[in-house]
Amino acid sequence: MLVVMQEGATESQVERVIEKLVIMGFTVHKSTGVTHTVLGGVGPQEDFDPLEFEVLDGVKECHRIVSPYKLANKRFKPNGTEITVRGVRIGGPEVVVMAGPCSIENRDQIEISAEIVAKAGAKGIRGGAFKPRSSPYSFQGLGEEGLKMIRTAADRHGLFVVSEVMDRSQIGLLSEYSEILQVGARNMQNFNLLRELGTIRRPILLKRGIAATIEELLLSAEYIMMGGNYDVILCERGIRTFETATRNTFDVSAIPVLHGLTHLPVAADPSHGVGKRNLVAPMARAAVAAGADVLLMEMHHDPDRALSDGAQSLFPEQFAELMVQLRAIAQAVGRSL
Amino acid sequence: MLVVMQEGATESQVERVIEKLVIMGFTVHKSTGVTHTVLGGVGPQEDFDPLEFEVLDGVKECHRIVSPYKLANKRFKPNGTEITVRGVRIGGPEVVVMAGPCSIENRDQIEISAEIVAKAGAKGIRGGAFKPRSSPYSFQGLGEEGLKMIRTAADRHGLFVVSEVMDRSQIGLLSEYSEILQVGARNMQNFNLLRELGTIRRPILLKRGIAATIEELLLSAEYIMMGGNYDVILCERGIRTFETATRNTFDVSAIPVLHGLTHLPVAADPSHGVGKRNLVAPMARAAVAAGADVLLMEMHHDPDRALSDGAQSLFPEQFAELMVQLRAIAQAVGRSL
Amino acid sequence: MLVVMQEGATESQVERVIEKLVIMGFTVHKSTGVTHTVLGGVGPQEDFDPLEFEVLDGVKECHRIVSPYKLANKRFKPNGTEITVRGVRIGGPEVVVMAGPCSIENRDQIEISAEIVAKAGAKGIRGGAFKPRSSPYSFQGLGEEGLKMIRTAADRHGLFVVSEVMDRSQIGLLSEYSEILQVGARNMQNFNLLRELGTIRRPILLKRGIAATIEELLLSAEYIMMGGNYDVILCERGIRTFETATRNTFDVSAIPVLHGLTHLPVAADPSHGVGKRNLVAPMARAAVAAGADVLLMEMHHDPDRALSDGAQSLFPEQFAELMVQLRAIAQAVGRSL
Amino acid sequence: MLVVMQEGATESQVERVIEKLVIMGFTVHKSTGVTHTVLGGVGPQEDFDPLEFEVLDGVKECHRIVSPYKLANKRFKPNGTEITVRGVRIGGPEVVVMAGPCSIENRDQIEISAEIVAKAGAKGIRGGAFKPRSSPYSFQGLGEEGLKMIRTAADRHGLFVVSEVMDRSQIGLLSEYSEILQVGARNMQNFNLLRELGTIRRPILLKRGIAATIEELLLSAEYIMMGGNYDVILCERGIRTFETATRNTFDVSAIPVLHGLTHLPVAADPSHGVGKRNLVAPMARAAVAAGADVLLMEMHHDPDRALSDGAQSLFPEQFAELMVQLRAIAQAVGRSL
Repeated sequence: MLVVMQEGATESQVERVIEKLVIMGFTVHKSTGVTHTVLGGVGPQEDFDPLEFEVLDGVKECHRIVSPYKLANKRFKPNGTEITVRGVRIGGPEVVVMAGPCSIENRDQIEISAEIVAKAGAKGIRGGAFKPRSSPYSFQGLGEEGLKMIRTAADRHGLFVVSEVMDRSQIGLLSEYSEILQVGARNMQNFNLLRELGTIRRPILLKRGIAATIEELLLSAEYIMMGGNYDVILCERGIRTFETATRNTFDVSAIPVLHGLTHLPVAADPSHGVGKRNLVAPMARAAVAAGADVLLMEMHHDPDRALSDGAQSLFPEQFAELMVQLRAIAQAVGRSL
Repeated sequence: MLVVMQEGATESQVERVIEKLVIMGFTVHKSTGVTHTVLGGVGPQEDFDPLEFEVLDGVKECHRIVSPYKLANKRFKPNGTEITVRGVRIGGPEVVVMAGPCSIENRDQIEISAEIVAKAGAKGIRGGAFKPRSSPYSFQGLGEEGLKMIRTAADRHGLFVVSEVMDRSQIGLLSEYSEILQVGARNMQNFNLLRELGTIRRPILLKRGIAATIEELLLSAEYIMMGGNYDVILCERGIRTFETATRNTFDVSAIPVLHGLTHLPVAADPSHGVGKRNLVAPMARAAVAAGADVLLMEMHHDPDRALSDGAQSLFPEQFAELMVQLRAIAQAVGRSL
Repeated sequence: MLVVMQEGATESQVERVIEKLVIMGFTVHKSTGVTHTVLGGVGPQEDFDPLEFEVLDGVKECHRIVSPYKLANKRFKPNGTEITVRGVRIGGPEVVVMAGPCSIENRDQIEISAEIVAKAGAKGIRGGAFKPRSSPYSFQGLGEEGLKMIRTAADRHGLFVVSEVMDRSQIGLLSEYSEILQVGARNMQNFNLLRELGTIRRPILLKRGIAATIEELLLSAEYIMMGGNYDVILCERGIRTFETATRNTFDVSAIPVLHGLTHLPVAADPSHGVGKRNLVAPMARAAVAAGADVLLMEMHHDPDRALSDGAQSLFPEQFAELMVQLRAIAQAVGRSL
Repeated sequence: MLVVMQEGATESQVERVIEKLVIMGFTVHKSTGVTHTVLGGVGPQEDFDPLEFEVLDGVKECHRIVSPYKLANKRFKPNGTEITVRGVRIGGPEVVVMAGPCSIENRDQIEISAEIVAKAGAKGIRGGAFKPRSSPYSFQGLGEEGLKMIRTAADRHGLFVVSEVMDRSQIGLLSEYSEILQVGARNMQNFNLLRELGTIRRPILLKRGIAATIEELLLSAEYIMMGGNYDVILCERGIRTFETATRNTFDVSAIPVLHGLTHLPVAADPSHGVGKRNLVAPMARAAVAAGADVLLMEMHHDPDRALSDGAQSLFPEQFAELMVQLRAIAQAVGRSL
């Protein structure tokens, strides 16, 4: 930890900071420069708020040196994490596609969906059973009935299932029906939920919150991993910015940034990233070109009648065409799909 | 609902939109202009995603006319909502201050805190018992033990208690010990929690998420109110922007904007809004000047040794001084404190 | 134009709005709904601020219907604009690469740069002669001397030159030495400059400001086009968001959004978009995958010694390798490079 | 300057960084910790881009220690800067109000405006003569004719004039007619303009760009001060965020942040900060409560007919009432108005 004192900080101000550092268990090195005194602290504890020091008199700024996440850190596993789900290796040379409708609506819909996505080359099917939405007046999902439907459809077509867990109480149920549990953007910092997910043996697809920094996404992964569950897939799905032409701003650069910081596989969800169907294909291509390990996409056999997220769901033929393009791009970056 | 067609949209594109509107139950009025055709839809349902229409061929844009929230709407109760807690009227002419430490740390700390805040004129004491934090390696709170401590201290000094509920399972416990249940920024869209809070008889202090629009905050209040609990206090506590000089950007203008849109009382939390102690006092003054009904502030008897949020906690003497200034500002805007 | 009245707006409030509309030259259609009255205005003038109406008593919201830009609108030239520069067609089937150093530093540097970029397949060379920077203490550019150097180097290698114009007074000089004049992000709303660029006969590469919406970028293009210069290339180069892991957030989705709104060619500058060398290659690939017509990149023969922007400049070998990948991705999306 | 090496950085990577530091003229101190090596560099030059180091192999992060601005730094003049304009002290105990219309429209309008603002207690009148706007189809200002009108009106009522300079070529003209030259938000980083303003003897009111950090605002002030003109007033006027309920998010906290970093007076412009008349009064009160030295506000004698910015212009009676409230708040924070 580094504390930079202000120009002209008094000796007693410096001593006050040293005292606080020592109380917190740090060994302190003091370096007196022409303009600024810098205090370097080495300690057992790197979990503190730099603002604690920045509000002390005479302090200019404070920098944490050690990354606040350890298990998610690339150094922890420099060769990367591979997660095998139903024989499919996630985080390996192949780009893995998971697709399907936003919500599970009925048996026919999910059967048709499974057929379409499997045929086009996807390895997993997505579909939500619990859909609490921004407006309390919207469709809220089929619950366990829906999960049974998606499981049956997936099995018939050799797909694995990814479905969202909204609450600790649903973990058992979700684990019964799906191979991968998804944590939605709004739950990225639901620490009670994360902690419990650390104790199960199912891979977790963790979505970045719309206002979460990349570091915060990694800290949330750390919460899960601390419990012993190291199979976490990180997922970029758009951040909130001033631009209103798209629902969110899909932060494609998060993909290579994450690859530089962590060993965990990186997914991208262009459907939520942009919110409009005609933008999903170019953004899916961009994500693969930028190095995504996994693509998560919404496809609906009849989007105009979808009960949720119809606007961002691809038509079946769009999806099939897109898969062909993605395959070519995957090859261009040295991968397969 | 208004759908504006693109210049040059074909007749069949217009018909396609009308068909979709009719299926959704809307009565449609078509207005053909020189450049644009506009479709006005009146219907039973105003809960839809405008993007559903914007992705249709030939559509330029779609605007919802009716506000997506009804119970939180100012029209629902034009004279405003007053919530009485332990004899204190929130949302009335008085500006109500709730203050205290971030976390309940031990019996002495909370006793001293209660004494200080009561003496300076605060009506409520705040203090968290459950503290899951961004980093999994941080202090996580005292739980029920802490709640007992704050209850005792509050009673001794005639204060009411406001404390945060993190999870549905804690509602019963929190209701036992505190008059007001706080929903934190990260839970603003935890719809399962909100729905359950709608069924209890305790006022809810609902904090704005750091990436939530004002409309989304009102929709979250609506979730609670739909269950029958109309005692919701909305709380601005900073939004995330590109500026890094402050922890968040405290959106003071949300206070008058909310007063224009809703009948619910509006609170402000300058401590979380800015994150640094020396900025809390000016921002607290700004919030009262802008019309806040409630101020929520962190005060610690020894901030340098606080287990959480020490950097943004006021010293006791700062707090007392600030209360004097706030009183003068309240008077300048026609209120008391 | 559409003005939606509030629920319960009085008749005199409605009349007040109609009166204002009529004064502004609009023909008004009034539609009285169950809850809301909507006023539709058709008029000669679509250049007004919707806020003018939103602040009137009884008004809920106001929407402009007609796009505020006309010449930049896709409808103006549905088949797209192609700009031919030194025999190279920009906006056609080929993806055109322009690369080179941030600043022109000396004769040798620019000669080596031209050789490297030409050999790898770029068609244009970039390099700045005027470099006023955020800090007044930085290197400020070589001026006309630099322009002479880049012109000579470009001619020797069959490249066209793109260079930035910072001020109206430099237009003549820049036009003498470069085929394309670039307007930097900070000047995107320097309307005096834009207006003057509308009167010359050189293509303009217009960069999006870091806080500019896509609509504002198109309005700035309109400023240039109004003067008669229709050869405008729009360039995404990153917007400012809360994320600090990258210098800016490179908004890849702006590329397909722009292709949907305008006939003008769309460029992408991943170097400024992310600010760090190791992220430039993935983002360049993403931009081509998303449909960019032009790529603008910084390449330096010795980035560690670059006088500006070294951190985001590619090494020569990185650049050559990247060009090979970009060619494969261009083919995957039906284009050449 | 501090360079933190990654955990496990090799000795040759460390040496590579030291070499680069030495080339740049830094004296280097190396501190080897258990996990991280930290290099401290002391040098003549603090004007460099930390990213230059962050892209080097083995580097984790780099922090500049010395503030990039010197003349604007609070240490340069710890007692603060007072600027006297026509006998009015700006930056002293008094809160100074400058008000008037957005644009100078005609002689009568500006005469009435001067009378109203002077009577209510404002010391300066504002009004723009050059109005290039986002849309090229809008009213563009009266030019020198307008300046003559505002000068006459100001003199008649004992007010000083503040008016915006858009371009270097206008500096002479503006200096002739107005005491204070305003630099608009869009020109905050027009470095050629700033440099020239550094050579004149007129106070400059420098507005913060809508995407500018507070540090960048101070760097722009530094540009002016480097030329010898130390009379700079910094002005917060709203930043661009995701919230659309207000035109911009008025960053009230910038006021106390700036007071902590610089000796320059701090102004606030709530009119542009929020964009809607009914929010201007609460935000003006908030700005004074937070410590603003100057308030800049738009007032129009007939806002519904204003040629620009009518929506954010106060009615005369609103303005007069507001001034009374502001006076009371100024007193509450120990100032006068």
